[in-house]
Amino acid sequence: MTGRRSFASDNSAGVHPDVLEAIIDANVGHVPAYGDDPYTARAVAQFRRVFGEDIEVFFVYGGTGANVLAIRAVTESYHSVICAESAHINVDECGAPEKFTGCKLLTVPTADGKLTSEDVHPFMRGLGVEHHAQPRVVSITQATELGTVYRPEEVRALADTVHAYGMVLHMDGARIANAAVSLGCTLKAITADVGVDLLSFGGTKNGLLGGEALVFLRPEFATNFRYLRKQAMQLASKMRFIAVQFETLLQDDLWRRNAEHANQMARKLRDVMADVPQVRMTHPVEANAVFAVVPGDHIAALQAEYFFYVWDEQTSEVRWMTAYDTSEEDIHAFAAAARRILGA
Amino acid sequence: MTGRRSFASDNSAGVHPDVLEAIIDANVGHVPAYGDDPYTARAVAQFRRVFGEDIEVFFVYGGTGANVLAIRAVTESYHSVICAESAHINVDECGAPEKFTGCKLLTVPTADGKLTSEDVHPFMRGLGVEHHAQPRVVSITQATELGTVYRPEEVRALADTVHAYGMVLHMDGARIANAAVSLGCTLKAITADVGVDLLSFGGTKNGLLGGEALVFLRPEFATNFRYLRKQAMQLASKMRFIAVQFETLLQDDLWRRNAEHANQMARKLRDVMADVPQVRMTHPVEANAVFAVVPGDHIAALQAEYFFYVWDEQTSEVRWMTAYDTSEEDIHAFAAAARRILGA
Amino acid sequence: MTGRRSFASDNSAGVHPDVLEAIIDANVGHVPAYGDDPYTARAVAQFRRVFGEDIEVFFVYGGTGANVLAIRAVTESYHSVICAESAHINVDECGAPEKFTGCKLLTVPTADGKLTSEDVHPFMRGLGVEHHAQPRVVSITQATELGTVYRPEEVRALADTVHAYGMVLHMDGARIANAAVSLGCTLKAITADVGVDLLSFGGTKNGLLGGEALVFLRPEFATNFRYLRKQAMQLASKMRFIAVQFETLLQDDLWRRNAEHANQMARKLRDVMADVPQVRMTHPVEANAVFAVVPGDHIAALQAEYFFYVWDEQTSEVRWMTAYDTSEEDIHAFAAAARRILGA
Amino acid sequence: MTGRRSFASDNSAGVHPDVLEAIIDANVGHVPAYGDDPYTARAVAQFRRVFGEDIEVFFVYGGTGANVLAIRAVTESYHSVICAESAHINVDECGAPEKFTGCKLLTVPTADGKLTSEDVHPFMRGLGVEHHAQPRVVSITQATELGTVYRPEEVRALADTVHAYGMVLHMDGARIANAAVSLGCTLKAITADVGVDLLSFGGTKNGLLGGEALVFLRPEFATNFRYLRKQAMQLASKMRFIAVQFETLLQDDLWRRNAEHANQMARKLRDVMADVPQVRMTHPVEANAVFAVVPGDHIAALQAEYFFYVWDEQTSEVRWMTAYDTSEEDIHAFAAAARRILGA
Repeated sequence: MTGRRSFASDNSAGVHPDVLEAIIDANVGHVPAYGDDPYTARAVAQFRRVFGEDIEVFFVYGGTGANVLAIRAVTESYHSVICAESAHINVDECGAPEKFTGCKLLTVPTADGKLTSEDVHPFMRGLGVEHHAQPRVVSITQATELGTVYRPEEVRALADTVHAYGMVLHMDGARIANAAVSLGCTLKAITADVGVDLLSFGGTKNGLLGGEALVFLRPEFATNFRYLRKQAMQLASKMRFIAVQFETLLQDDLWRRNAEHANQMARKLRDVMADVPQVRMTHPVEANAVFAVVPGDHIAALQAEYFFYVWDEQTSEVRWMTAYDTSEEDIHAFAAAARRILGA
Repeated sequence: MTGRRSFASDNSAGVHPDVLEAIIDANVGHVPAYGDDPYTARAVAQFRRVFGEDIEVFFVYGGTGANVLAIRAVTESYHSVICAESAHINVDECGAPEKFTGCKLLTVPTADGKLTSEDVHPFMRGLGVEHHAQPRVVSITQATELGTVYRPEEVRALADTVHAYGMVLHMDGARIANAAVSLGCTLKAITADVGVDLLSFGGTKNGLLGGEALVFLRPEFATNFRYLRKQAMQLASKMRFIAVQFETLLQDDLWRRNAEHANQMARKLRDVMADVPQVRMTHPVEANAVFAVVPGDHIAALQAEYFFYVWDEQTSEVRWMTAYDTSEEDIHAFAAAARRILGA
Repeated sequence: MTGRRSFASDNSAGVHPDVLEAIIDANVGHVPAYGDDPYTARAVAQFRRVFGEDIEVFFVYGGTGANVLAIRAVTESYHSVICAESAHINVDECGAPEKFTGCKLLTVPTADGKLTSEDVHPFMRGLGVEHHAQPRVVSITQATELGTVYRPEEVRALADTVHAYGMVLHMDGARIANAAVSLGCTLKAITADVGVDLLSFGGTKNGLLGGEALVFLRPEFATNFRYLRKQAMQLASKMRFIAVQFETLLQDDLWRRNAEHANQMARKLRDVMADVPQVRMTHPVEANAVFAVVPGDHIAALQAEYFFYVWDEQTSEVRWMTAYDTSEEDIHAFAAAARRILGA
Repeated sequence: MTGRRSFASDNSAGVHPDVLEAIIDANVGHVPAYGDDPYTARAVAQFRRVFGEDIEVFFVYGGTGANVLAIRAVTESYHSVICAESAHINVDECGAPEKFTGCKLLTVPTADGKLTSEDVHPFMRGLGVEHHAQPRVVSITQATELGTVYRPEEVRALADTVHAYGMVLHMDGARIANAAVSLGCTLKAITADVGVDLLSFGGTKNGLLGGEALVFLRPEFATNFRYLRKQAMQLASKMRFIAVQFETLLQDDLWRRNAEHANQMARKLRDVMADVPQVRMTHPVEANAVFAVVPGDHIAALQAEYFFYVWDEQTSEVRWMTAYDTSEEDIHAFAAAARRILGA
């Protein structure tokens, strides 16, 4: 059953054909390694076109690398990072942020995966006291790990608070494309324009073979960053093959088309599954994830047909993710299987 | 001049067509992320075929990641690592080993980039004394950064010393293929069979798009390694695309053919350049690197035609590297340019 | 007003006269540095007498050092540590645990500063999954930072859970003496006998000039620990002067007398303050801390007479700590000042 | 034989009576912990008197802590530190600098333990290249680990080179007092006045019970340092007892008298031992250490009478150190024992 599409994660999908084509086209002769090549320059130019000229952008291997390096770029080891309890940096990076930066993560329980200014204020009590790690970064995820999306004005309000405290706002944008599409906004409108300082720009979950970009929307933080990237084992030698993927993703709005499709499939999936009486949706479907509670006894049987992950064993909450290549047939077949297995 | 071949490094080359073909072929549907997929299983099987069944192998993004994780897998932070002064881990990884492992590097000046037992003994004085970092790993590079190659009996002798002291022998095999070809040996004969415990198996410099493998020839060191890989930001989500590259490299001996060609080109380059009176070779050409002293005044002009790196500004020593795709025409054209520019 | 006693903290107090006398007596001639001296041997023997022969004990400079090294002794960097949100390791060590060990801290909000098995279970979900830091240590504080005390059976129950999960139980015993006295137990009865594996044994807060002890109740964890202590910058050269303090504290039960007095003074303070109508106690007084809510407007005036810390600005909760040298006069004078200032 | 004076190290000695007296005198009532007390203020004032008003000074527990924090205060993890191979930070701190700072140590073999500008130049080749750790600190020891002393003009010349490269000069002054006395200079004349930026000011080896000071001769480096000290587990709670030791050491030139005596005893020891035919001095005696080669067969017998350390097993080189409390009788008795045992 290799290759059959699943609802496990958007990184279970393969490479978008246009992206693969770009890789093939870039496989010509020799170019300098480590990013000093014309492909990388062109990809950077695309980022400048999209996010504004006054940025710096660095390509790294993966999302954990992007997030950890974003934090590291603006912290000393005695700093702390405020994030939602459900944040990828807190839950899914095996302690990489703590290990590489030395910083403490301060977590906030949330219902929807989103932080507000109210969540930030209480952590400011220890400011200036040497016994306490000093809050320096607020990190939010867009779209969140729960499939919800910050509205631009929500980010703006949070950014204002963060900046008022002299801190830095980082956005884990592993699914920034899904968020932008969901909001009907440009990428810049939900990042640079609303006070985001540092952006982990996701590619792998939106159709790339592999690669993420760290976008410094405040370029002064990028001084000397190249040493950190190398020391963090995130500097690719054959950089051109990451760069052309991003060039392809950004030009002609491939990022948007991919995300639009994934989001649309998630809404469809929500719609067809919402009709199954034994299924109860647990979060609004604003990006490409559907969260639902299903009868625990039947989960394994359903996974056997289309794999997906259980989010919470105790409550039988599951997560279904769609990708740029999810088809309507997948959804109908999945819904049919669900109805059959659940006896709906 | 994008794409023109150079003698800068074997990682200036692109992807071998067979490897790229394998990537294209693997781009089918969904598979689980992070290595739990059939492609990865097949690639691991190839490694077992080549190195023996009793190994563990993990794929990582790059060579620095492989080396750092190899060291980390067998050390505590109070350990030290003995290596040649010229070792990649010492010179070219921006302190990543120290940063991630906490270990001290103990370096040995060498003429040819190779360590012997005699180099190791003096560091044993502090064993058991809490004031001193405790030697735990000896790390050698095969082929070395100077283009020389350890003979199997040299590795064996060193391994015996290392093991007698209760230490671990790591081999940075970024160019292990070039070494094996140079020696006319199998990969196993120059690693597992002569006492190497941990091997960073290079792919990127031998025709891959990107990816390295960490081979645990003593599998007991691999227990819990998966957490370290993740925490080191070296776990690829779309693992299949790294895995199929290695499967392709190992099956049908593509690794051997690529390295054989590169080595042959290096010997040819040495031969044609040795005839240029102003050029003096500084190391035996045993793999795919040629080191030579050339008149410093003409280096820039020569670089402008075929880029390469200066190894030592003071002595005007340069490094010319060949790759799997270097052509005889490249060599003759380069030699002609050299004769013209140097006035030979 | 130098030297006037306060209710700020038990580390505002000076050195108990017997302890100072021991230091003076030890100031004779030369002894080997770093603990290879007869004073250290005698102090270790006292710990063996108190906690059992099958332990290892190491002296360090301070409480943060003891806690961080306890965690480090039993963890890899990809592990996590479960503790109360109010734990000293979480709040008051400026991220030292994360920085030195790389581990993630998983915190639990509690009413009384105490953890139970119920708090531990939910963190076990990610066991064995490489994306998640792996729980390895549960750390509790005895007496807690809120002045409450774990009963031995509470520790036992928690220890059983911890061990069933293959984890390690660490006790931050900065005020272990106050807890033992409060419970009417021996030190061993509330540590080794109820499943504590590692104990930070506090000295400074109970009348020492400076020094803490890390007690390995499971001595197998102490193998190679001496390298960690040195690397953590916690190895004192003139070790004899730390050792004799602990020898004095443990022999003839000075630890008990000091703690008994401090606890008694705390109860007295509670009693006299409880009579002040504007004061409301917020935690049971089980050790040497009194927590109370007082009218916020009068805090500064009260602090000016006898300094103490505000625990929570928002609720006007304050902490009053007693020490081995707090006198009844101090308490009555403080209560009088409080009545005067609060207008009671 | 507890307490008998040895020639092992100046940290085998006890506490100078004046220092102990000051500790006793400071044991009065309560003062705020962590350095916010009048004793600490007075000790800082003494440092300002000696080194100039425009400094910052922080007290830490030990010499390793002082050195590691000095490096950390001015580095990022991708920096490197140039030092003599024999430097304490390289040899005797169990890798603490690498562990806590992440920095690479670049070591220089020297005959006399002293660095010159010539030693620094070769490391500048990798400046600005992301693959290489970036040199940021040059660290020298005064007096050196080999008992030699930098003349002020030597430090000045090195400092000029260091500053020309935009780097920072750190001095490990564990025995700065012995150096100043040897040179007949003030402490300021051999540090602040000749370009030293950061000074680890040693106390323990010159008669203190325990404690070192980190002196920021360029106070801009001290911004936010207090968080680093805490996170490095080097913040003492009962700070007053470290502070009064330094106050005593600096006022009335106790530091000078102690060091003068130790140095004088070293010269005497050199003189009486130089007459023993089997003994050959290996370094000039400029501070309080005597290095000599003695017949290896008799070392153990000699150690049994007056303990000392073997510096180099292979060459039978030993180190004899004098302290502030070494007596002429010790020296004559030791010389007599040596003559007897060596059969001179």
